[in-house]
Amino acid sequence: MKSDLDILMKSKNLDAILVFGNAEHNPPMTYLTGGGHVSAATLIKKRDKAAVLFCNAMEREEAAKSGLNVRLYDEYPWQDMLEEAGGDTAKMAAMRLNRIFLEMEISGRVGIFGHVELGGMFATLIFFQMLMPSVELVGETRENSLFMVAMETKDETEVARIRRMGKITTEVVRLTADYLTSCEVSSSQVLLDENGADLKLGAVKAKINLWLAERGASPTEGFIFAIGHDAGVPHSQGNPADLMRLGQTIVFDIYPQEQGGGYFYDFTRTWSLGYATPETQKLFDQVYHAYNKIVENIDLNANFKDYQMLTCEIFEKDGHPTPRTQPGSLQGYIHSLGHGVGLNIHERPWSGLTASDDNLLKPGVVMTIEPGLYYPDQGMGVRIEDTYWVRPDGVFEILADYPYDFVLPMKKWNG
Amino acid sequence: MKSDLDILMKSKNLDAILVFGNAEHNPPMTYLTGGGHVSAATLIKKRDKAAVLFCNAMEREEAAKSGLNVRLYDEYPWQDMLEEAGGDTAKMAAMRLNRIFLEMEISGRVGIFGHVELGGMFATLIFFQMLMPSVELVGETRENSLFMVAMETKDETEVARIRRMGKITTEVVRLTADYLTSCEVSSSQVLLDENGADLKLGAVKAKINLWLAERGASPTEGFIFAIGHDAGVPHSQGNPADLMRLGQTIVFDIYPQEQGGGYFYDFTRTWSLGYATPETQKLFDQVYHAYNKIVENIDLNANFKDYQMLTCEIFEKDGHPTPRTQPGSLQGYIHSLGHGVGLNIHERPWSGLTASDDNLLKPGVVMTIEPGLYYPDQGMGVRIEDTYWVRPDGVFEILADYPYDFVLPMKKWNG
Repeated sequence: MKSDLDILMKSKNLDAILVFGNAEHNPPMTYLTGGGHVSAATLIKKRDKAAVLFCNAMEREEAAKSGLNVRLYDEYPWQDMLEEAGGDTAKMAAMRLNRIFLEMEISGRVGIFGHVELGGMFATLIFFQMLMPSVELVGETRENSLFMVAMETKDETEVARIRRMGKITTEVVRLTADYLTSCEVSSSQVLLDENGADLKLGAVKAKINLWLAERGASPTEGFIFAIGHDAGVPHSQGNPADLMRLGQTIVFDIYPQEQGGGYFYDFTRTWSLGYATPETQKLFDQVYHAYNKIVENIDLNANFKDYQMLTCEIFEKDGHPTPRTQPGSLQGYIHSLGHGVGLNIHERPWSGLTASDDNLLKPGVVMTIEPGLYYPDQGMGVRIEDTYWVRPDGVFEILADYPYDFVLPMKKWNG
Repeated sequence: MKSDLDILMKSKNLDAILVFGNAEHNPPMTYLTGGGHVSAATLIKKRDKAAVLFCNAMEREEAAKSGLNVRLYDEYPWQDMLEEAGGDTAKMAAMRLNRIFLEMEISGRVGIFGHVELGGMFATLIFFQMLMPSVELVGETRENSLFMVAMETKDETEVARIRRMGKITTEVVRLTADYLTSCEVSSSQVLLDENGADLKLGAVKAKINLWLAERGASPTEGFIFAIGHDAGVPHSQGNPADLMRLGQTIVFDIYPQEQGGGYFYDFTRTWSLGYATPETQKLFDQVYHAYNKIVENIDLNANFKDYQMLTCEIFEKDGHPTPRTQPGSLQGYIHSLGHGVGLNIHERPWSGLTASDDNLLKPGVVMTIEPGLYYPDQGMGVRIEDTYWVRPDGVFEILADYPYDFVLPMKKWNG
């Protein structure tokens, strides 16, 4: 949690942290500022001291909403520095940072963070290190970085925000199911739109986007609504020209975010409209069985990776390739069981086979459970996913309930 | 233009370029791949050779849509490398990059690009430099970097996409004006909503978001709809709790983007509902006069900064502080005249007083003209902005026309 930052900085032997970039769509900066229209900011926090946020004058009022101590870049004579740097803004930024560090008396190990444009920032940091050899810039591997560890456990306010996105998500999923099942169906088993034309997947996606926007949620990273072959490739987002046909697997993986780059929710259902083929029904049953098995067996403070092992075991028994038996396979079970969800759609705890052993399902964790099986060459894929909160009392709670039905009966079609 | 990349690489003495990150919301990667749901990819291009895109297996099909040569990270035994790296994924990534560079026979100066999480990438690059001292990683200052220069001129396809966003933008602006002017007005000159309650600015913003979504445009970086004091602070986005009152300046600066992180449009109008006070009318007239003066005088292949000088001159004559007379001022004319627009909302050419002299208004440039005057303490601000394309025939064309009216008469209010 955010309140752990100083303790975590100490355990990582960081004397200060530097966060660069915008306040929005930049998880570490959003985490510390609360977001808002503040661009190209620099946040500096010494261990056990309050953070200071440097920004451009035009954005001072947006920055002030963070409640942080706000200071302006204009306090420094950047035009003079730019001249001294021969017009090189990356060098100018390094010189300014040097002045700020001297004023704030920062030395030692300084962690660097932020979602930024790499080139200029790399140039600035390399030049800064030359100016200030007393500072050691520390780039942490994202997976286990300070912010990933701090963000891993959520407070009640964060959980409430994720739960709100879950409510919106499941509302939109329900609207989508209602819409699809209300469509007329052609003699070739293709859904028809309001005008009697073949319903295209792109039109369904457009409706989903609209339903999200109406509710104040952003599909920042898109969403997956894929049918048939594409459903068999976990991250294919779906081909807009595909027709909506009965009896094919539809993977609907939707992960909207609060507007402005806030908290995500993550959710997947797999549907087959009208009826299911024996092959897809079997695949669904296996995934649903695995999902239930995992949920039944999940334990407080267990290692998340243990359930990846359990999932592999279950699917291997069913005869599917898994990351244990066939790493790099393009069919079978080919991803990890889940991941933390917060200001990042993917964050700690991790469940992959190579995840470190400190990825525990401890109180405050919000994470997905999402087993899946994929056979693109057979035109099918199934995934089931819910987002869970590990409550302070140790109970694993789904943050938004929704039925698991695979076959969605068509209201105007009787086979 | 994209077709200039090899020539630009040569002029910048770059033997290769490396682009990291997602294909979406990452302008250099979007530019070269066309976007799509490809995350944590690595694009490598040697000068005068075709680009190669490395990605995760799950995203191979999305990656293939780029038309580039796609290769999978899984071709490398990353589990072994990870073990060798002691579980440090940043080091593993450096080791893999080293293998790829050896295979592709890359050495010399390599430009690095991409919108990424800084910490882990910094660690990877520092480690990579140790592994491969024959490579010099070059972080270019963003303002004049390879991609900024290439993207500065647009081809017809890009212009068509920007124009389409302009059409959507002005449609939404018109809907907003129609909605506001149709509202009933209370005796205290506050607009009323459909239920007769005071209309809040947040409710207007929600409608604008919806109208954008209906048209397939994303307010990725938000938009500014600010009234009174907030209109006087250029980048304040507007306070949702503010009431919509007659006779106050409303700055509506809207810059939507194609969904998935594509091309932007940028547009501003300033309105006063029902009537204008003499002070705000005067301010508007001065900005409108400056806007017209600039547009009348703008010349093909001129230095963009010259028109910033002209704008300062005009506003100084009217008695306003400008960046020339009072740098760092919080009132008067306090920003630069415009900027390029493309996959970045702000890109080359630049018009600020410190911009380099090669920011020319040459054919293919798409840029904004946006003079403004701000007096937050007097509760007012005015900005007018259009996006122009410098056509191959040298004509400056507005990509979406919209009237400049300041006072919008209220249909159901007669003073």
